[in-house]
Amino acid sequence: MNDDLQKELGTVRSEIDAIDADLLDLLNRRAKCAQKVGEIKGRYGDAGHIYRPEREAQVLRRIQETNPGPLSNESVTWFFREVMSACLSLEQPLGIAFLGPLGTFSEQAAVKHFGHAARLLPQSSIDDVFRDVEAGHADYAVVPVENSTEGAVGRTLDMLLGTSLKICGEVVLRIHQHLLCKETDLATVTKVVSHAQSLAQCHEWLNRNLPGVPRISVGSNAQAAQLAASEPGTAAIAGEAAADRYQLPKLAANIEDEPNNTTRFLVLGRHDAGPSGRDKTSLIVSTPNRSGALADLLSPFSDAGVSMSRLESRPARHALWEYVFYVDVEGHRDDPGVASALRQLEARAGYLKLLGSYPAAVY
Amino acid sequence: MNDDLQKELGTVRSEIDAIDADLLDLLNRRAKCAQKVGEIKGRYGDAGHIYRPEREAQVLRRIQETNPGPLSNESVTWFFREVMSACLSLEQPLGIAFLGPLGTFSEQAAVKHFGHAARLLPQSSIDDVFRDVEAGHADYAVVPVENSTEGAVGRTLDMLLGTSLKICGEVVLRIHQHLLCKETDLATVTKVVSHAQSLAQCHEWLNRNLPGVPRISVGSNAQAAQLAASEPGTAAIAGEAAADRYQLPKLAANIEDEPNNTTRFLVLGRHDAGPSGRDKTSLIVSTPNRSGALADLLSPFSDAGVSMSRLESRPARHALWEYVFYVDVEGHRDDPGVASALRQLEARAGYLKLLGSYPAAVY
Repeated sequence: MNDDLQKELGTVRSEIDAIDADLLDLLNRRAKCAQKVGEIKGRYGDAGHIYRPEREAQVLRRIQETNPGPLSNESVTWFFREVMSACLSLEQPLGIAFLGPLGTFSEQAAVKHFGHAARLLPQSSIDDVFRDVEAGHADYAVVPVENSTEGAVGRTLDMLLGTSLKICGEVVLRIHQHLLCKETDLATVTKVVSHAQSLAQCHEWLNRNLPGVPRISVGSNAQAAQLAASEPGTAAIAGEAAADRYQLPKLAANIEDEPNNTTRFLVLGRHDAGPSGRDKTSLIVSTPNRSGALADLLSPFSDAGVSMSRLESRPARHALWEYVFYVDVEGHRDDPGVASALRQLEARAGYLKLLGSYPAAVY
Repeated sequence: MNDDLQKELGTVRSEIDAIDADLLDLLNRRAKCAQKVGEIKGRYGDAGHIYRPEREAQVLRRIQETNPGPLSNESVTWFFREVMSACLSLEQPLGIAFLGPLGTFSEQAAVKHFGHAARLLPQSSIDDVFRDVEAGHADYAVVPVENSTEGAVGRTLDMLLGTSLKICGEVVLRIHQHLLCKETDLATVTKVVSHAQSLAQCHEWLNRNLPGVPRISVGSNAQAAQLAASEPGTAAIAGEAAADRYQLPKLAANIEDEPNNTTRFLVLGRHDAGPSGRDKTSLIVSTPNRSGALADLLSPFSDAGVSMSRLESRPARHALWEYVFYVDVEGHRDDPGVASALRQLEARAGYLKLLGSYPAAVY
């Protein structure tokens, strides 16, 4: 029977070996093509733009549409993400600034978007993330901009106002929060620690299940998990990665108040992206008048049939305007409808800053 | 000219798209084959052994031997490492225990051997790494066993004596140490922090370049880098990963005393590995006599033409033997020469423990 087993396994393994030989050949042919792209661009004096967000988005979307399985769409998308990352780094390894430390959702977002071959450059504040790219130390920045339950990340919005960087991509990350603790009973939890935003995302759950237990905000969820791992009675709210890394059992899983809790990150660089077929355009706009004039101001978009996917108002930090509005619309700034709406908006608005056009998140 | 550029790029991109379609098809066919392997093994009642170290080593060696470039051998090996990791995790995601925290060489070794799809389970001590696998919480352990300049990791050797786990693999990691510091001049460095072993690996360099500056050992190189990032005048000795992660400039690079500084890690599980064609066998042996009897004791290996790649002696911790010897030989315990030498050794030695046979490190 062992012989039969070996024979059957041998057949499948020969098949795997043949597949591997083809895979190896294809990977290298792909890398050669990527080199050829770099060579052609160099010849036409376009060498600075080897990384093309719109092209990568198109490749990944096609992979998802044509994936027959059994590998999951997530798995193959990740895989091609990594293939492109490796091919790109043959010529130009990218440095990515993000809000550290490691083990945070921002790191996950950076790797999800740029792959393993990118150099991760964790920073200690959102301001530093912007500065690192503006100063040319890093090529791209990844910053959180909004959470589906908690709303906008104020510091990012403020930095967008003054930066010379352009938005060239977005990453949407599904966030699950867990109560991590060495205790086995909620009754013995004496303290809950987490990042302020995570505490806010689980506010209702905490009110219902741990009323009266002090909530203490710390610098990051990773740091919270570290505390929970060392202090008896301390529970952390943090994600899967932190649970794994600090070997903390989940006293309660998926405790976020909104079941579809996601965080959206922006990718910023020195250029925005070309059209990919499914794009967004972000801008900041303001009028000297009160917000009542806003509907009127934005009517060129609805007139042109352009959908607005997000509108965020924020008190202005200088005296000239009372409010600034952060607007995301669907479509690329080169699309005829978006382009004509932008021209009209420019004529009407007291202040308009185009933050960039970029592919909608792929996965 | 822009049209010509677009036309040339279009041609290459169509080629890339065709390659990607083939890659996607092959990856899924490979995953189906891996499922078939699991199904066959299940049918023959051999379901527990889906991870086969010897088979993975063979696949990766063949990839290296046949890689035509331009992708580096390291890059394609990593890639196939990841493909196998993804295929395996379709059926059985592996949990890997190692000495944390993150950002250490042990994490690098675990990922180098098991790929991205494995679950990383950092532990706070070498003892905990062993215990976590013995208790079945993790599937495999990755522990450092020797450094090319500093020698054996005593705690690992001691744990090998008592464990029921088997060695099923090894990982060799090239280690470069850098002096990381926010200062721009050696003269302003007031303190050097690092893991004790890293301080030892740079002993000569420190004597020459920072005589009289206090050296303080901390729990890990990652922790040292964190200190250097926050305290003026403090320099850390740590690797590339820590420099990147804490954004610390290298005040001096590659300061290790031995230019070929490598650390070797062992992979331990509940079974050792089958023959892969290039294997090692590790064992512990002892005699009641003094070490003078050692050459005699080990002669069966030389008689059988089996090379010894390592011999480490260590004072025994119980009274029965004065020394125990850690021996690595080339070849698998099923190879005729090794098998016959082991039989003779067993007859002569006061104590013999076979730690396992496993593929020699692939990359």
